Order: sequence, then structure tokens, then C-alpha cells
Amino acid sequence: MTKDTTRVFQHGTLATLVPGLLDGTIRLDELAKHGDAGIGTATGLDGEMIMLDGVAYLVRSTGEVKVLGPDTLIPFATVHFDDQNVEDGFEVHDLDMKQLSKHILANYPYHNIFFAVKIVGNFKYMQTRAVKGQKKPYPTLAEVASEQAIFYEEDSKGTVIGYFSPELFQGMAAAGYHLHYLDEAKTMGGHILSFGITDAKVFLQPFATIEQHLPLDNADFMHHKLDMDGLSEEIKKAEE
Amino acid sequence: MTKDTTRVFQHGTLATLVPGLLDGTIRLDELAKHGDAGIGTATGLDGEMIMLDGVAYLVRSTGEVKVLGPDTLIPFATVHFDDQNVEDGFEVHDLDMKQLSKHILANYPYHNIFFAVKIVGNFKYMQTRAVKGQKKPYPTLAEVASEQAIFYEEDSKGTVIGYFSPELFQGMAAAGYHLHYLDEAKTMGGHILSFGITDAKVFLQPFATIEQHLPLDNADFMHHKLDMDGLSEEIKKAEE
Ligand SMILES: [Zn+2]
Ligand SMILES: [Zn+2]
Repeated sequence: MTKDTTRVFQHGTLATLVPGLLDGTIRLDELAKHGDAGIGTATGLDGEMIMLDGVAYLVRSTGEVKVLGPDTLIPFATVHFDDQNVEDGFEVHDLDMKQLSKHILANYPYHNIFFAVKIVGNFKYMQTRAVKGQKKPYPTLAEVASEQAIFYEEDSKGTVIGYFSPELFQGMAAAGYHLHYLDEAKTMGGHILSFGITDAKVFLQPFATIEQHLPLDNADFMHHKLDMDGLSEEIKKAEE
Repeated sequence: MTKDTTRVFQHGTLATLVPGLLDGTIRLDELAKHGDAGIGTATGLDGEMIMLDGVAYLVRSTGEVKVLGPDTLIPFATVHFDDQNVEDGFEVHDLDMKQLSKHILANYPYHNIFFAVKIVGNFKYMQTRAVKGQKKPYPTLAEVASEQAIFYEEDSKGTVIGYFSPELFQGMAAAGYHLHYLDEAKTMGGHILSFGITDAKVFLQPFATIEQHLPLDNADFMHHKLDMDGLSEEIKKAEE
């Protein structure tokens, strides 16, 4: 398999998590054929996944950070092959998440496309969350989101990775930024709620191809009647 | 390139046609690397494209049917490699378009996924349309759709090809069926409005992977600010 860095691969869709289809449907080693960096979740939404340099970490709601094994089943993940052109990055200083996202969309014509965001450096503060793992029968995403743990750390050194999805593909993914964090010591991370950058380098990787993979062998997915009315609203609520 | 029959490839999106981004952005020979069957349009929406056995035909609003050359530029197309398992098809008799689509979704658990539909046989009647080619500055899709030619033929023999898109991916493609037709004599076809089947064989091809390709090298696409409000409504109107 060639490492095509202009392509992003997504397994599952956010829309199927909303009604509670939380079983893992792809093995991590299969997912890793499509990327060495990215984000995702685990069966039962048991934490926030972050993949860096081909290693997948799970940040659980207990605060525990663990490395996931190759046979771990994943219900929803987005991965890509990180394009390691360090010279393409740009330096930023004293900037919060909102200021950075404005800066990006003001300086790059990327509002209609998918792109990856990687931020490596020092954070004045980092606020993340990790949802609590659920057992069957699974609740809806909105119910799970209300049971999340919040983590906050000052002066954290680490890596942010995630994606910008254009509004065009709402449903497939939540429109806007979806970023995860892992600190350098691998002791703190999760789904990012907010951050402030002290100094860091930002890397953007635009994608010409979006590869959306669906679990056709999963009977729950195939037979579930998705209620699309108000789905965008529920996604927005759960992602806040 | 391997011919993966579990994958559908789309270049461009319906959503970018709506505001009038009608320039071709992929060469036909490049598109043909991703499929030998499918549907699409031409620069300026100058007709309805149908690809069968690797040959792309364009049905223009004048009624002319022509074979497209390899260097033709296409703004929007969906293609796949036709899975020639004749034994997988099912026979139908005396059925209209609505009855067939009901039959499919009642008998196959395919409402959440993309699948191709191919219908080969005899049609009691076939009603199609072809939009009229536009010159720059391009009008919007709704304006173009009001300038379409309607074709109607009784006792037509030919092939229907197209796709079902789940509601989940509205924006990327219009939810529901999008079918094109070409008769056996290659003299009549277009974007299907309605049909009645006398007797035909129906082939369904479900896809595990949807590959969405975007024209990152097209400045109009990159710089256009899509107005997503009411986009679904406009797509529905134009597709009617
Ligand atoms: Zn997340
Ligand atoms: Zn059409």
C-alpha cells in the first residue's frame, strides 16, 4: 500500500454514533493500513483515541492513557498518512484555539475541503474531555456526552492532531474542527475543548480525496433506520 | 490499478454545481481509472453523461448522443467498476420506477449505504431530461434546470445506470436515486424522470467505500464561499 498523503480515510460516520451504534467495526491494524495519524473512539465510546506515528493511544474518562493493541475494534476513526514536511509548518505564539482557527481560514483557501491540523509545541493551557465507556444497550451520543470527564492542564507540552471538515460534508463528520491532544509524557489528553498556545508549530495537510468506509458487515448498522431530522443539532450538542 | 468493485468514486460534488461552478475539473481518461460505469455531466452542464463498459456518452438537450473523448473535462461524475455477476441480478416485470425503488429498499438492507443500480431490458416508457449547456458566467443549477429538454420514448430497449445515496450523505450527493438511461441503439437517453419496465434484469452493487475526490487545483472551487443555507432545498428542486 502506497502512503498517499493527499487522502484521508474515515471508518464509520459520526451520524451512526448519534443513535448509539457504538460497537467497534474495524480492527486497529486494518485501520493503520490507511494512516499513521488521526483520531477516533473505542467500542462503547470508552475514551478518546489519538494516533501518532502509527501508535494509537486511548485517553479514558478515568484519566488513564493506554496504548491500543492491533486487534482493538474501533467504531469511528479518521486517519491519514502524516506528511512530514517540517518546513511547511508555521510558527505561532500566544494564540488561543479560536484565534488559530480564524488565522487558518483567513490565510488558506481551505473552507470547502478536508484538511488535517497538527500542532506541536507548548500550551499555556489545554482543556480536554473524555467520554465514559458505555455497555449495551448503548445510550445515544447526547446521553453519553453528558457523562464526560474534563481534564485541564497548564504549561503542557504535546501534540494536537485532528481535522477540519467543510460544512458540505455535515453528517459524514461534524462541520468545523475536531481535534484531539496527547501530551509528550503520554499522561494527559483527549478530545479538545479549548487551548492556549505559548509557542508551537502548526502543520496543515489538505486532502484531495476523502475515503469514507462503512461497516457493511455490521448488521446493526445495515438495519438501523437513521432518523436524520435534527441529527445535525444532536451532533452539535454532543460535540460542544 | 486494481478493479475494486466494492468502491464508488465521485469527482466534484452536487453542492458545487448549485451555485454555478460548472467548469470541468477532471479529464475523462483520469476518471476512467476509477470506474467503467457511471453517470455525470459535462462542462457548462452541457448534457447528461452515462458511462457503460468504459465508454462515456453524452446526451445533449438537442437530443444528440455523442461519445466523449479522453480529454473531455468533467465537473461532476460518479463511477464504479461494474461487477459483472449476471447471476446476482433479479428479474422484474411490469413495474414503474417508484415500485422498483420501494421493492429494493424493502428487500435489501441498503438504506444507509451507497449502491449502484443497473437495469437492462425493455421499457414500456422512458422519460428523461437533458439540461442545456451554459456559457460563462454560469447561472445557478436551479436556473439551468428550468431550461431542460424532456425526452419520452415508448417500447425502448436499453440500460439504466445510476446510484442510490443514503440521506446521511446529502450534500455530497442528492439523497435517493439518481439514474441515467441510454437505449441500445445509442439514440435516446438522459437523466431519468420516470420509467415503466416491461421486463428487465436489475443488478444492485453495494459499496463499502465511497471515494470523494475534490478539485483542489481549481481556484473557483477553492475560493467559492458555499452558501449552505437552503442548499438541500435547491438540490431537491433542481433534481425534480
Ligand atoms: Zn473527539
Ligand atoms: Zn443526472
